[in-house]
Amino acid sequence: MRLERIGEFGLIARLKDKVCRPNQRVVAGIGDDAAAVRVPSKGLLLLTADVLVEDVHFNRRIQTFWQIGWRALVANVSDIAAMGGVPKHALVSICLPKTVSVEQVEELYDGMQAVADEHHFQIIGGDTVSSPRDLVVSVSLCGEVEERELITRGGARVGDLICVTGDLGGSQAGLAMLQLSGTRKKSHRASLSAEQWSAVRDRHLRPQPRLYEARLLAQEGSVHAMIDVSDGLAGDVGHIARESGVGMEILEEKIPIGSQTHRVARYLGKSGLDFALHGGEDFELIFTLSPVDARRAAEKVRGETGTPVSVIGKILPAQEGSVLVSPQGKRNPLIIEGYRHF
Amino acid sequence: MRLERIGEFGLIARLKDKVCRPNQRVVAGIGDDAAAVRVPSKGLLLLTADVLVEDVHFNRRIQTFWQIGWRALVANVSDIAAMGGVPKHALVSICLPKTVSVEQVEELYDGMQAVADEHHFQIIGGDTVSSPRDLVVSVSLCGEVEERELITRGGARVGDLICVTGDLGGSQAGLAMLQLSGTRKKSHRASLSAEQWSAVRDRHLRPQPRLYEARLLAQEGSVHAMIDVSDGLAGDVGHIARESGVGMEILEEKIPIGSQTHRVARYLGKSGLDFALHGGEDFELIFTLSPVDARRAAEKVRGETGTPVSVIGKILPAQEGSVLVSPQGKRNPLIIEGYRHF
Repeated sequence: MRLERIGEFGLIARLKDKVCRPNQRVVAGIGDDAAAVRVPSKGLLLLTADVLVEDVHFNRRIQTFWQIGWRALVANVSDIAAMGGVPKHALVSICLPKTVSVEQVEELYDGMQAVADEHHFQIIGGDTVSSPRDLVVSVSLCGEVEERELITRGGARVGDLICVTGDLGGSQAGLAMLQLSGTRKKSHRASLSAEQWSAVRDRHLRPQPRLYEARLLAQEGSVHAMIDVSDGLAGDVGHIARESGVGMEILEEKIPIGSQTHRVARYLGKSGLDFALHGGEDFELIFTLSPVDARRAAEKVRGETGTPVSVIGKILPAQEGSVLVSPQGKRNPLIIEGYRHF
Repeated sequence: MRLERIGEFGLIARLKDKVCRPNQRVVAGIGDDAAAVRVPSKGLLLLTADVLVEDVHFNRRIQTFWQIGWRALVANVSDIAAMGGVPKHALVSICLPKTVSVEQVEELYDGMQAVADEHHFQIIGGDTVSSPRDLVVSVSLCGEVEERELITRGGARVGDLICVTGDLGGSQAGLAMLQLSGTRKKSHRASLSAEQWSAVRDRHLRPQPRLYEARLLAQEGSVHAMIDVSDGLAGDVGHIARESGVGMEILEEKIPIGSQTHRVARYLGKSGLDFALHGGEDFELIFTLSPVDARRAAEKVRGETGTPVSVIGKILPAQEGSVLVSPQGKRNPLIIEGYRHF
């Protein structure tokens, strides 16, 4: 159905039905000038925003509307997780070219609502406008964290170990294969079984935020600095170095990279390490803490969530800079080269 | 300077310097995964979002970047005001075509920061991405209100008077003249003095949110329902009717329309009433309250802010519908026809 058939307010009424959930904290929800919600009497409010633009962050030839919606909210949940908090209320603004159908917008919201349901928060407002050309999905997410559980990028201390959850480069490997699908549909899957293909693809199309893992770490209380991997390992550890005023060394051979990621990289004549360092959108957590705490924290995360934790390096004094150590012991400057927006 | 010269993180560093203000409530600001702020121990959190898209909400041939930024934040402040609250923290996401310069982005932020400074809130985060084609400015604003001062669209009662601040249709009159500038630059100002022209133009280019007036009304405590005029009087009183489950009559001759607005309308062969009913973006307040309270509230607003308040109609039972009464007493259905996004 064309959007013009039901208009802006018809669309909002449909979306409101889709996302409204009874919640005692919501005093005024969708359909007023602003949403009004009760907040707990203590703790901090967390605020984050991510905007996804067609042909920059997603591509309708690769992703369904459901997957675009899922990805938009996951990016925000991952940011709240990286502060040690829990997501609570989302505002969603969408700019829709006239060619998008009502059903496609509903599918987009189904993808977003799936994330909201899984992580127990609500979409409580936003804006719905037309766009001459680009499809844009802009999300703001409010979360909460107790002040003593807040983890920033700025707390890393010299001597800390640097840890990472899961494995890296998977999202970029998935994207590279999906981009190939458009051109050589038949031949490219030859190197992967159906199961492997599905696993690789899902890393890009249906990423998982590490909210539970982050909450465990925040409650555990020993993590000094944390960030989620959205720009690639090199860029994101770089943010920790800059905000904490420290240097670091990352041991190349300790960076966790899945066998599928290596396999895809080989197939494409690329390197799994490059995917991990510069790919981004893995939404894994990078965190630093003292060596005596690292083992306990890693075991807690692994034990309670099944998510592996790898120690990939350590924090050094600022004057030693940030270096990547090769398996042969060669020390190269850590070059930050994530997605270049401009 | 081209954006690619300083890159995404170079741009963020510049913007951070521009908008950062010392504030004890901000525990983590721009430069982390999310901002973290302290909230007062009581009261409600207000959340609203507005997105502006080039060639839909603004036009670079008509507005400067400063004015686009100003307009983006005013729309959000006006939404928080209409709930009876005060703005506190803004998240700004911008999608930038590669043709936009660093200086233009800074000018956009200067316009936003001017609103933030005037109304004592902070820009504390957001997202900065590239866009293939459209310039998009997406803002989320958090505000606060004590629960007993919250005013929604849904509280209007049968017998209430309907009031409006200031005058209506001015923004649309300004826009119509500005659009004309592009085509008949010399001739069109003939009907207006330089001073009149400047006043008409500013209504569109530099609208003012009625934050102080709204706060007075909220504290005064007698207002039952409130909304700001963003879609035009007809559409916005329609929202009150729908959310409150009531009907209403609006007296055409009581609708406040400025002499400049009438003059521009005549010059263009249009009607000032049409500008007021369907123009939108005036950011005036529409509110309803009992006849015994109306005079006191209106005098308080007029006395403390200088802003006039007009009584334009009254709330009726739902079955009587929403009607516009002509000066001759003819009752016509109130037709909602604001900007059609789809």
